Amino acid sequence: MNEVKALCFDVFGTVVDWRGSIAREAAAFFGKRGIDRDWHAFADAWRARYQPAMEAVRSGKRPFARLDDLHRENLLDLLSAFEIEALSDDQVDHLNHAWHRLDPWPDSVEGLQRLKTRYILATLSNGNVALMVNMAKRAGLPWDVILGAEVARAYKPQPEAYLRSAALLDLPPANCMMVAAHNNDLVAAADCGFRTAFVARPGEHGAGQTSDLRAEHAFDVVADSFVALADKLVR
Amino acid sequence: MNEVKALCFDVFGTVVDWRGSIAREAAAFFGKRGIDRDWHAFADAWRARYQPAMEAVRSGKRPFARLDDLHRENLLDLLSAFEIEALSDDQVDHLNHAWHRLDPWPDSVEGLQRLKTRYILATLSNGNVALMVNMAKRAGLPWDVILGAEVARAYKPQPEAYLRSAALLDLPPANCMMVAAHNNDLVAAADCGFRTAFVARPGEHGAGQTSDLRAEHAFDVVADSFVALADKLVR
Repeated sequence: MNEVKALCFDVFGTVVDWRGSIAREAAAFFGKRGIDRDWHAFADAWRARYQPAMEAVRSGKRPFARLDDLHRENLLDLLSAFEIEALSDDQVDHLNHAWHRLDPWPDSVEGLQRLKTRYILATLSNGNVALMVNMAKRAGLPWDVILGAEVARAYKPQPEAYLRSAALLDLPPANCMMVAAHNNDLVAAADCGFRTAFVARPGEHGAGQTSDLRAEHAFDVVADSFVALADKLVR
Repeated sequence: MNEVKALCFDVFGTVVDWRGSIAREAAAFFGKRGIDRDWHAFADAWRARYQPAMEAVRSGKRPFARLDDLHRENLLDLLSAFEIEALSDDQVDHLNHAWHRLDPWPDSVEGLQRLKTRYILATLSNGNVALMVNMAKRAGLPWDVILGAEVARAYKPQPEAYLRSAALLDLPPANCMMVAAHNNDLVAAADCGFRTAFVARPGEHGAGQTSDLRAEHAFDVVADSFVALADKLVR
């Protein structure tokens, strides 16, 4: 483990609570306008459109587009599905930037601050650079560098997303550890030669979550919070 | 000035003292090996090879190459010019990474910490990502995001270096302020629509410095340190 120089973080679900935050943002935005829906279902439905949108890029069906742009296309579709009409472009942009205002899990900032004393902390998220920077400023996430999909021009779990991020750090993959709450992300990173740390987030999808409740592979580290991860990685 | 969201920093000379730091590193490295030269002249000669190397990329004579790689090519030439022989590849790499170990000017960290409370702090340097990240970890430079030549795939003062950095922040150039100790860097940024701040570093090239002693154009802000810049920009 001494050879790990950089921790590369998945962000949505691993560092921040996208579901609770999107529901909170939507409730505040639409509540003022007298519109009432199940906002957790709204968040889930927005997120359900995430993988298909990226898959169109990964498959080559469309050129690379930033996650902000994919989110916005999906939002327009979602508003229609939830029978919400007549928002201005500015209102759609504001709502779309709810993804820039996600709240961290309670242990994230403390854990990251401790991990930062020993490691380079990099985002390796499918979120675009502006999204990651704005989120970090608001939430106090102490990243050293923003890497991931937009700078790699590839969406996880494509190998290029991991390998180009490591190359930007001028580190062999074996000197990078992917930290994520999702088994498939860690398996893809391990296939690229990364070390791996699973941090369980059993509430990411709410009380009924059925996936990613535990590490399903032999990852290098398993922890149930970022504070617990820091206990294991920072002596 | 209220519309400025991000401060984009030149780094070599503006944030860190490359000349004094390279001379210090070279003196320590070669001193142990009984080799004595004028190490400030060595630093100046290394830096003198910097613009011509980037110009080969800017002109299209060669494809984009990271500054670490240009620095290394220039170092091999420099060792020959200074009649220093027979270093191993690892020794050359160590010496080349002296650029990752540059010391900040005495006011840099305090000023940046204050500016960070109000603005996004981005590097917009010709240094590559790994160089900027390693330098920041060692020197305590609190960047929010590493932008500049490597992610833009273009060396300043080419417009793409500035414009692609602003695009990654999803900000119009008018919401970005370039901070530099070099008149030509600020003029190029202003031509792209950036706001500009000149911070004088009259000791960058040592006691005999003749260039960039003062702001030669009507920049938006002029200051003589990062602390003075924070006094002007952070209320």
